[in-house]
Amino acid sequence: MADEIERKFLVRTNAWRSSADAGTHVVQGYLSSNAKATVRVRIYDDERAVITIKGPTEGISRREFEYDIPFADAQDMLALAEPHIVQKRRYTVPFAGLLWEVDVFEGAHAGLVVAEVELEHADQAVVLPDWIGEEVSHDDRYANASLSRMPGVPAR
Amino acid sequence: MADEIERKFLVRTNAWRSSADAGTHVVQGYLSSNAKATVRVRIYDDERAVITIKGPTEGISRREFEYDIPFADAQDMLALAEPHIVQKRRYTVPFAGLLWEVDVFEGAHAGLVVAEVELEHADQAVVLPDWIGEEVSHDDRYANASLSRMPGVPAR
Repeated sequence: MADEIERKFLVRTNAWRSSADAGTHVVQGYLSSNAKATVRVRIYDDERAVITIKGPTEGISRREFEYDIPFADAQDMLALAEPHIVQKRRYTVPFAGLLWEVDVFEGAHAGLVVAEVELEHADQAVVLPDWIGEEVSHDDRYANASLSRMPGVPAR
Repeated sequence: MADEIERKFLVRTNAWRSSADAGTHVVQGYLSSNAKATVRVRIYDDERAVITIKGPTEGISRREFEYDIPFADAQDMLALAEPHIVQKRRYTVPFAGLLWEVDVFEGAHAGLVVAEVELEHADQAVVLPDWIGEEVSHDDRYANASLSRMPGVPAR
């Protein structure tokens, strides 16, 4: 179990690509998203699979439990989650001592690019790269569970 | 992943106790119970913990995925699941070549005793012990997820 504390932003430009890794393909689906918990199954690069249980969000923090599971199980669970599926390529971008994750969404959410940074504590200072746009940490529409239920890119 | 096929009955008498094992104490909570999946966390005898994801019920069959998880994680998840908790003692009772599980509920559901038998296939013949009462396989009120949301013993 870990507490997940993260801030989330829209991405303004492609300048992050020059410092990004090759990225990892992510397919994820939601078996549950309610007041108590979000239950997500995720497949990385068509080989590694994890199930993640997240508790309720409190501010920008939430409890997170994550376990590796057999790939075949994850495929079956994604079928159960249909059509609540999100596909994206996730890039890692180091900047000013922090690791940013830039998610380039595909499929039903193509066009959406979001950057997240995970923090040690909620009031940690963060130096924002100049490719960062508006903060959406508190905009539920950008939660991947919300995106999975609604095709398209949320309107600004 | 396994398909779970089971039938469930009320228990009429205590005659099963003479063939039962010592039983295992079970505390379980539900993080989710919706049309796609039920997500259950369960602690056995205050030591072993598992998380179980069950797909939608189709007749008396449903997909089931189960993983061992750290005990401390399970305690945290049960706290998230509050008050949707079920406590019971589960006994194993062999009869006519099948293993029956008799659940003696405690706490909010004290007084309820239910027997389940897991089958290889849905139309398998089952010899019923004489302590077996009415079948409740298709009565959603006896699903543990339903019980967790409603204290008391369902009225007959």
